[in-house]
Amino acid sequence: MIKVGIVGGTGYTGAELLRILAQHPQVQVQVLTSRQEAGRRADALYPSLRGHTDLCYSAPDVATLKGCDVVFFATPHGTAMQMAPELVAAGVKIVDLSADFRLKDTAQFKHWYKMDHSATDLLSEAVYGLPELHRDEIRKARVIGNPGCHATATQLALAPLLAAGVIETDGIIADSKTGISGAGRELKLGSMYSETADMLKAYAVTGHRHQSEIDQELGIVAGGPVGVTFVPHLTPMIRGIHVTAYARLKDRSVDLQKLFEARYQNEPFVDVLPAGDHPETRSVRGGNVCRIAVHKAPDTKTVVVLSVIDNLVKGASGQAVQCMNLMFGLDETLGLKAPPLMP
Amino acid sequence: MIKVGIVGGTGYTGAELLRILAQHPQVQVQVLTSRQEAGRRADALYPSLRGHTDLCYSAPDVATLKGCDVVFFATPHGTAMQMAPELVAAGVKIVDLSADFRLKDTAQFKHWYKMDHSATDLLSEAVYGLPELHRDEIRKARVIGNPGCHATATQLALAPLLAAGVIETDGIIADSKTGISGAGRELKLGSMYSETADMLKAYAVTGHRHQSEIDQELGIVAGGPVGVTFVPHLTPMIRGIHVTAYARLKDRSVDLQKLFEARYQNEPFVDVLPAGDHPETRSVRGGNVCRIAVHKAPDTKTVVVLSVIDNLVKGASGQAVQCMNLMFGLDETLGLKAPPLMP
Amino acid sequence: MIKVGIVGGTGYTGAELLRILAQHPQVQVQVLTSRQEAGRRADALYPSLRGHTDLCYSAPDVATLKGCDVVFFATPHGTAMQMAPELVAAGVKIVDLSADFRLKDTAQFKHWYKMDHSATDLLSEAVYGLPELHRDEIRKARVIGNPGCHATATQLALAPLLAAGVIETDGIIADSKTGISGAGRELKLGSMYSETADMLKAYAVTGHRHQSEIDQELGIVAGGPVGVTFVPHLTPMIRGIHVTAYARLKDRSVDLQKLFEARYQNEPFVDVLPAGDHPETRSVRGGNVCRIAVHKAPDTKTVVVLSVIDNLVKGASGQAVQCMNLMFGLDETLGLKAPPLMP
Amino acid sequence: MIKVGIVGGTGYTGAELLRILAQHPQVQVQVLTSRQEAGRRADALYPSLRGHTDLCYSAPDVATLKGCDVVFFATPHGTAMQMAPELVAAGVKIVDLSADFRLKDTAQFKHWYKMDHSATDLLSEAVYGLPELHRDEIRKARVIGNPGCHATATQLALAPLLAAGVIETDGIIADSKTGISGAGRELKLGSMYSETADMLKAYAVTGHRHQSEIDQELGIVAGGPVGVTFVPHLTPMIRGIHVTAYARLKDRSVDLQKLFEARYQNEPFVDVLPAGDHPETRSVRGGNVCRIAVHKAPDTKTVVVLSVIDNLVKGASGQAVQCMNLMFGLDETLGLKAPPLMP
Repeated sequence: MIKVGIVGGTGYTGAELLRILAQHPQVQVQVLTSRQEAGRRADALYPSLRGHTDLCYSAPDVATLKGCDVVFFATPHGTAMQMAPELVAAGVKIVDLSADFRLKDTAQFKHWYKMDHSATDLLSEAVYGLPELHRDEIRKARVIGNPGCHATATQLALAPLLAAGVIETDGIIADSKTGISGAGRELKLGSMYSETADMLKAYAVTGHRHQSEIDQELGIVAGGPVGVTFVPHLTPMIRGIHVTAYARLKDRSVDLQKLFEARYQNEPFVDVLPAGDHPETRSVRGGNVCRIAVHKAPDTKTVVVLSVIDNLVKGASGQAVQCMNLMFGLDETLGLKAPPLMP
Repeated sequence: MIKVGIVGGTGYTGAELLRILAQHPQVQVQVLTSRQEAGRRADALYPSLRGHTDLCYSAPDVATLKGCDVVFFATPHGTAMQMAPELVAAGVKIVDLSADFRLKDTAQFKHWYKMDHSATDLLSEAVYGLPELHRDEIRKARVIGNPGCHATATQLALAPLLAAGVIETDGIIADSKTGISGAGRELKLGSMYSETADMLKAYAVTGHRHQSEIDQELGIVAGGPVGVTFVPHLTPMIRGIHVTAYARLKDRSVDLQKLFEARYQNEPFVDVLPAGDHPETRSVRGGNVCRIAVHKAPDTKTVVVLSVIDNLVKGASGQAVQCMNLMFGLDETLGLKAPPLMP
Repeated sequence: MIKVGIVGGTGYTGAELLRILAQHPQVQVQVLTSRQEAGRRADALYPSLRGHTDLCYSAPDVATLKGCDVVFFATPHGTAMQMAPELVAAGVKIVDLSADFRLKDTAQFKHWYKMDHSATDLLSEAVYGLPELHRDEIRKARVIGNPGCHATATQLALAPLLAAGVIETDGIIADSKTGISGAGRELKLGSMYSETADMLKAYAVTGHRHQSEIDQELGIVAGGPVGVTFVPHLTPMIRGIHVTAYARLKDRSVDLQKLFEARYQNEPFVDVLPAGDHPETRSVRGGNVCRIAVHKAPDTKTVVVLSVIDNLVKGASGQAVQCMNLMFGLDETLGLKAPPLMP
Repeated sequence: MIKVGIVGGTGYTGAELLRILAQHPQVQVQVLTSRQEAGRRADALYPSLRGHTDLCYSAPDVATLKGCDVVFFATPHGTAMQMAPELVAAGVKIVDLSADFRLKDTAQFKHWYKMDHSATDLLSEAVYGLPELHRDEIRKARVIGNPGCHATATQLALAPLLAAGVIETDGIIADSKTGISGAGRELKLGSMYSETADMLKAYAVTGHRHQSEIDQELGIVAGGPVGVTFVPHLTPMIRGIHVTAYARLKDRSVDLQKLFEARYQNEPFVDVLPAGDHPETRSVRGGNVCRIAVHKAPDTKTVVVLSVIDNLVKGASGQAVQCMNLMFGLDETLGLKAPPLMP
């Protein structure tokens, strides 16, 4: 059994790790930290877990965490880079769900997260944890920067087109719609029911943190800079991201359906829908899967890609477990096979 | 492997059987019927099942169904009683999610379902499929009448009090709040989004079908007639039932917490919350569990029981699988152990 | 024009006063206070009001408020009783939407609100602002304690039965379901979208503040103590309260429909539905109206009353304006005639 | 008083006309038709209207409708063009909320609506009822083709840019998100609560009817063909449309905020938000207003326009009343001044 630690287990991605790992046959969660809730049972905060875990929160302690084989960080940005170096030195693998190990350019990191990076050595060896782009590196990695939720859905929508060189690399649009749980469990007016229910709004139009991940990773895929205008929207649903991506075809004759099916045919967690379909976020609710449909717009020169994930699963904790499976040489799908919940 | 047939697989309880059984290690669904969708893949209707099943709907055919070990009926009322006799004669076990085999009194059946009962012999041997009340009978049954959703939550809330004889058997109130999926996938104005979202209403105050089940079963528990006023309410949520039950204590000194904990201590799917708690429907979303809290009202003579289930799982398809496990001598919890989805 | 001040204008009831008064032909809001938002425009917080008001928040100042004819308090409990005495002395009328002037028994006030009452003289003359019970007193009042939202819907449901003496006064149940806006705009985990959407729960089963108002006022109506078990539930809707009240009939032959129609025939804001109907909270969304239906349960001895209001309108700000209209000798319905928003 | 007829009064736009006109001081609704509900009171279908109308539905009858000054058609496509010629000949003005009089090109009409146009003479004089583009023509019109909801929000977002010639006219994206009420009250699986709640999906990516309106009208504004890729999405809210429009700037130095403010400064129902803001659909819920914000994307060459309306008000019935006011020489804002409902 793999011994797992979770740092920051009170938030939604932490709880989602507990839910997923409760069904994983090869791991045991040994440490679950929260400074604020130390001493309380996890299932007191998440009664859905009653009967599935007896864990209590404990104050984070590096010595204890060193006894784990792998530690997940489900913490605010800035925590993982503080604690990771000592853990890695002790042979512990790291999967960081925050942004600390996603951006290779520390200037970008500082620009978006308003802090200096304190573990640049580890950062340089860290692998961006999107298995569909970096599977082999993840297998060998000691530190994973788990992708952002918007970024995951956007990259999976656009990577096949950029890799094949069939679209113009500039003027790409990624219009993303997210459920409210993406904003986390932290108290803020903008996450209150009466402020978000029965309504929709865009936010951060002039710049969102996931932009830098998208640029970095799609630039690698395209072999050069890409120009993506990324606009997120807040939608009255608990879970789910739907990215609608628009790009201009260089060659209108390309068989887009075939291109996507070929690119993802061996991917266990990317599902290319039949031609003409429209994916629904509910079809991935609770599941570690990205469903994608690709369309040609009526003008025949614009490609429209529709991509949906559950922001807490394939957009966070499920993807983190997928990375862990790869890092430990397990079947990549272990613990991740339950069908989504629909309706 | 147990060979399973599902008659009426297009509705929500049929699809939920597919979802649950996809995770069950001892069964294989062999037949899935729908007259209307014959020839279509199940995952075309429920894309959440893509990758989890290759089944296609077929027109219902008794000869084919006879090849199954067990057949679930997820059909409108009236279908199961037509087909069950021939299947049972052929050695097939039946779990009927409709009301055909719930009510022992055929006059009651006719009153509520507006049709004569056509299989009274089978009805007399059929077992009401609430394992917490009839586990041993279910183990030996050939035909199960799977309980209604409101009825399940109401009975689990009130049975301990009635069995212990600590409340007055008359003047009991069961105020039930259900999600919209309880009304099924059938087209009706009252199930449309714009008619049900962001609002709540009572319905059927002057008489609801589940009343007769509640009366029948709680009467058995109480050892005599009980008087329950049952009022259902439609609530803007997809899944979930919350019953708030009120009764008058005969003896104010009874330790209600202890009574409930003792009654359900060995039940794998009934969870008595700590004293003072309030169960949330989301804590059971997607899970086969009933969570219950018991309170004394400020007047100290009224007991208030709060009981939540997922209407499609413990209120329908999960409970049906639980019954099937018992009927085949399997571990009662097989396929039913995944934690609920929260948030 | 009546000069209006609003103390505490950032919360939902404050904003709702602005919305309603924007359509009132006889008033002008002159002062709008908020310590925290002083200097900001009201329509910066509530963009729905853009084009309808130019008001800015100012720090609360008694001298300025003395220039008003009437001051509404949309503040946390404890504020109105501090400021009201000086304002009343200066001839300003007060409508307090908090609980400071609702409870005649200061021990009850202290029990529920954890503070001593500091304006007992004013309290003794204050009138409970439910026009259907206290219209004539409201006309002459200087200080109004505007009722709580649950309490309004509960009292309007039960008052006709208690006044007519047709039910037992003990063992009454008031099962109330409220939308999330009832919890206000204050940051709390329990009001977050991801914590409340797609789910339902009871709260405060062992005692809720509105209990004391209900007991006080229904006791007056009944001419003696009443025993009401009041249980509130949190429901995933923005606005709306639905009370389901249960009581035992002393005389089963009473014509309940006639009783309710007679009691409310001259009430401009209570609508008794045709026999057999079930009121929907959406039918009162945004409107100052309580819709009621009365049913006999199948047992013929239990009466079930269904009562719906918009918690922010008839349950708060609309009722406050209704009281103001009465206090100033205006047509009671001024500014309150817009139809609810449905769907 | 203007005598009004409404043909097809059972759907959401018909009911919304009743709600709005109940507050209009210069009109009286005299005829309300529905073949299916003839004889029933309107407030039996829409209890929110109880106390606001005594109208009953009647079977549609041209003779009776001729007694009206203006007839609104809130009918499926194809009805208005059958009845309008005779009414217009009798001197009745027509506001058609269906698509019969929107498209000047009858081939386009046939392509999208699968029927021949039967009133081409009237079509040629009909005016597209978007006051912000056609105010003077509307004043003189006998027949109005009231715009589609997506089309209204899209045109108001893009017209200022195209009129000023500051964007490339090709490669424009209009990503639209609509509430479920836009699909109407007709029974369909895709409008059921359990199929649409807590989820989001795109639809009609390969072609939506509103495309042709958008092309026609923006082509006029631009003085030549425009290329807009329009993709609608279904969102779990009752009311509201949010269009996110993307276009490429010809000149990066243009002051976009100033451009929009100047274009709409005299418009009573278009509200340009302060620079940097993001409009919320709830800020227009129930109100006849379009709120718009304009942003430059981080790449500084893409303009992003955010535009919100209530699909049933500025996107349908409110706009229809606005047109009627213009046609009858009334104050354009009569009956349309109530603030939106927030929260």
